[in-house]
Amino acid sequence: MKIRATVWGENVHEQTNKVVAGIYPAGMHQAIADALNQDPQIAATTATLQEPEHGLTDKRLSETDVLLWWGHAAHGQVDDAVVERVAEHVWGGMGLILLHSAHFAKIFKRLMGSPCNLTWREAGERERLWVTSRNHPIAHGLPDHFELENEEMYGEPFGVPEPLETVFVSWFQGGEVFRSGLTYKRGAGHVFYFRPGHETYPTYHDPNVRTVLRNAVRWAHNSAKRVADVNAAPNVPVASALEPITERGPRLHHDGEAGLR
Amino acid sequence: MKIRATVWGENVHEQTNKVVAGIYPAGMHQAIADALNQDPQIAATTATLQEPEHGLTDKRLSETDVLLWWGHAAHGQVDDAVVERVAEHVWGGMGLILLHSAHFAKIFKRLMGSPCNLTWREAGERERLWVTSRNHPIAHGLPDHFELENEEMYGEPFGVPEPLETVFVSWFQGGEVFRSGLTYKRGAGHVFYFRPGHETYPTYHDPNVRTVLRNAVRWAHNSAKRVADVNAAPNVPVASALEPITERGPRLHHDGEAGLR
Amino acid sequence: MKIRATVWGENVHEQTNKVVAGIYPAGMHQAIADALNQDPQIAATTATLQEPEHGLTDKRLSETDVLLWWGHAAHGQVDDAVVERVAEHVWGGMGLILLHSAHFAKIFKRLMGSPCNLTWREAGERERLWVTSRNHPIAHGLPDHFELENEEMYGEPFGVPEPLETVFVSWFQGGEVFRSGLTYKRGAGHVFYFRPGHETYPTYHDPNVRTVLRNAVRWAHNSAKRVADVNAAPNVPVASALEPITERGPRLHHDGEAGLR
Amino acid sequence: MKIRATVWGENVHEQTNKVVAGIYPAGMHQAIADALNQDPQIAATTATLQEPEHGLTDKRLSETDVLLWWGHAAHGQVDDAVVERVAEHVWGGMGLILLHSAHFAKIFKRLMGSPCNLTWREAGERERLWVTSRNHPIAHGLPDHFELENEEMYGEPFGVPEPLETVFVSWFQGGEVFRSGLTYKRGAGHVFYFRPGHETYPTYHDPNVRTVLRNAVRWAHNSAKRVADVNAAPNVPVASALEPITERGPRLHHDGEAGLR
Repeated sequence: MKIRATVWGENVHEQTNKVVAGIYPAGMHQAIADALNQDPQIAATTATLQEPEHGLTDKRLSETDVLLWWGHAAHGQVDDAVVERVAEHVWGGMGLILLHSAHFAKIFKRLMGSPCNLTWREAGERERLWVTSRNHPIAHGLPDHFELENEEMYGEPFGVPEPLETVFVSWFQGGEVFRSGLTYKRGAGHVFYFRPGHETYPTYHDPNVRTVLRNAVRWAHNSAKRVADVNAAPNVPVASALEPITERGPRLHHDGEAGLR
Repeated sequence: MKIRATVWGENVHEQTNKVVAGIYPAGMHQAIADALNQDPQIAATTATLQEPEHGLTDKRLSETDVLLWWGHAAHGQVDDAVVERVAEHVWGGMGLILLHSAHFAKIFKRLMGSPCNLTWREAGERERLWVTSRNHPIAHGLPDHFELENEEMYGEPFGVPEPLETVFVSWFQGGEVFRSGLTYKRGAGHVFYFRPGHETYPTYHDPNVRTVLRNAVRWAHNSAKRVADVNAAPNVPVASALEPITERGPRLHHDGEAGLR
Repeated sequence: MKIRATVWGENVHEQTNKVVAGIYPAGMHQAIADALNQDPQIAATTATLQEPEHGLTDKRLSETDVLLWWGHAAHGQVDDAVVERVAEHVWGGMGLILLHSAHFAKIFKRLMGSPCNLTWREAGERERLWVTSRNHPIAHGLPDHFELENEEMYGEPFGVPEPLETVFVSWFQGGEVFRSGLTYKRGAGHVFYFRPGHETYPTYHDPNVRTVLRNAVRWAHNSAKRVADVNAAPNVPVASALEPITERGPRLHHDGEAGLR
Repeated sequence: MKIRATVWGENVHEQTNKVVAGIYPAGMHQAIADALNQDPQIAATTATLQEPEHGLTDKRLSETDVLLWWGHAAHGQVDDAVVERVAEHVWGGMGLILLHSAHFAKIFKRLMGSPCNLTWREAGERERLWVTSRNHPIAHGLPDHFELENEEMYGEPFGVPEPLETVFVSWFQGGEVFRSGLTYKRGAGHVFYFRPGHETYPTYHDPNVRTVLRNAVRWAHNSAKRVADVNAAPNVPVASALEPITERGPRLHHDGEAGLR
């Protein structure tokens, strides 16, 4: 069975900016989905901000193995309830891939618990991505480095928690560096942040970038059944303790009572 | 100059439950502050839920090197604005130590980006904490293991991100285990979760627990000046790039424009 | 194409101890290989200490995707050259799974860079393994905990580096705990340590243990082509720098000279 | 009481190369010790390859809180017994700071369990170090970035295990990047790798580099008493189990017997 990827696109600049529309006539989300569908193991579809519930109903998320997220101009328009719903699916095992300006997406900040800030410059300068974890599943098939001739610069310090693994570090022509590929776990969900992808450049048409996207979807896929209730905090009564114990001392709670939150 | 510790206590069960009041007549927060003040390097004071802004004004947090947090019954009563303020101080460098039932405190869930759930049982059973990172600064002066004869059980799986370091793992009489001492970084802030401390037992009078609290405050103290604006995402204009570059290609933004959020 | 697993067994106690021979008449390595071969994706074979080069020639390792290692009585008899050869294959991408008393195998100590010591007791006591990373690929299909009625005890502190992820923590009847499932990366190789498996108990016949072994092989498999020269430290001459630079200042080395080691 | 730092220098190129001797007339080790001694909390002395036991007797190491290591031309001349002795002191709690070409020092490779290789170029090009962990104790007092006008290039992929924390990432004029400041723990010992310091450039006279060195010594200092026997793997007899248990099933070992290694 194929890995079901949903590419979420904000779909704003594609509608309002001629440059972006020219590069991505069917939308950035569609270009990304097309890249994924070149992999026979992946079945990618799209969802956008403008759809009801941004296209991310509970049913849709339940049928999504890996969600990819591209947003920039409209982070603030994403409904908080949808953000929380996505977070719960990630905790339950859905993979999540954050692309470029999604460093400031509500869902990324929600999962990181940190500011996720950085420095930036829009000058069409050269970016060179270096693999720092050779043969990492996300770097399969890539050379030790590859270039994007025109990209927006993102610079350190990047306000994220220490990752599980640093897969890419970028060199920028103007003198900055950036940790461009970072892996995390949140609950049972595999999370990957990947830096490139400014909307005024043809980044998602680049073969190496497309390889990374496909690799990342396969890496982020957790084939286990999604965790049923990600927030459950069950009481284990004395009578059903795994080793025989006798209750001692004072208590706040009665048997079977829900815990305090 | 001493490390300024602020012990935040919810201060609810001390006022409503005779058992808790009997063990902690001046409140749990005061017992914890007393333990800290045995260390000549630490100057500990307290703040409680009932004070204006829960005692955690921006001024107070600015004068706090390390904040300790104990809450249980009233997590929901903590004002979201105060939670966000505490988070920003942590990102700027304030240390934060979460105690026991603070696993479900808003501030811990905010910083972890995960459910922070667990299993539990209130039976006064024996807990034995094992040091898993020998001679870690937080474990200085401790034997390889120590016991608390009566404690609430918390069991795995514990819904937190993988820590930087696992310092303690607990054994419970009823058959469970728990990662009882976990370190994290969020921004410039050192964060430590420490499991023991159910309010109906005299845990914060235990000498080994008090040693952990003092060690943790010293460990969590970041002596650098707090980061000025933890959320800043400054634009770096082409003219002030560190290496000479020429602007190329299309742009979304004008010079000096604020970035999109 | 199937994942090629090689199960390396010391094969000593199976030949000298009637209890062990009774539980594992074809050897522990064969019992483990049998467990793996229940998975249609895995093709497992065995190698033992007594074979020439311990059965681990460069050719054999080149044809091995994941190596499993069980040793105890004869760690000292393993040839250092073979250990180094295995290390190089791990760095190049071969997965490695260390079982039980392999905590003191030369290859584990070589890759960890630490003492790998622990406390122990052979009393046939109950061990209960708790999943600490719910739905981790290595824990797929397991309940939150499972028991082994008779096992050797291993206790903390365990002298290993902080892992990438802690997947299992064990509870022991006699009062100890142990981090029983730990993941690492060394070069391109995925490394997993799994605690259970004392030779006088039927641990490798346990269905949950066998599930872990199969999961671990799939997790440890790196499908990328093995890195050609894992120790290469190539000089990049000025003339082939990716950005044009001019040589400046004094030098120790001539162009094309090998670096100092 | 001051932190006792020992700066170990290979002391070869200072004696054989006029350029190096000109920049570091008293030796690189002495320049580094001088930088450390500017901190009133640190008392730094030196040791060199040419001394008996390379100046690193067991007594000397017992009196060293933090060891700094600079080597390049003579890695192969360092006695293996001394390397093992240093490793054991690190496991017991001694801090260790590896400088520049010490990436290929025996002690670093011993502790990392990986090849520690990289790419390199000696062209006197510009290096710019970026802080990736703002206000990390090792980065105290530094700006977000600082430059070294002439340095040797080291490029990714760097063959080391994933660090606990990445503190610095370097940008190089010729187009490469490098993770220049990495923290590790091995046993109770704090380990820091810091990239800059090629012998033909005045790097250790740079004020920012000297700040890093002083910060790193304070960070690496573990004030706990050194662990007595870092390799001990004690048997815990049934009779002294923390919880009462009865011996069951077959055994390999007799009471009090040493374990197999």
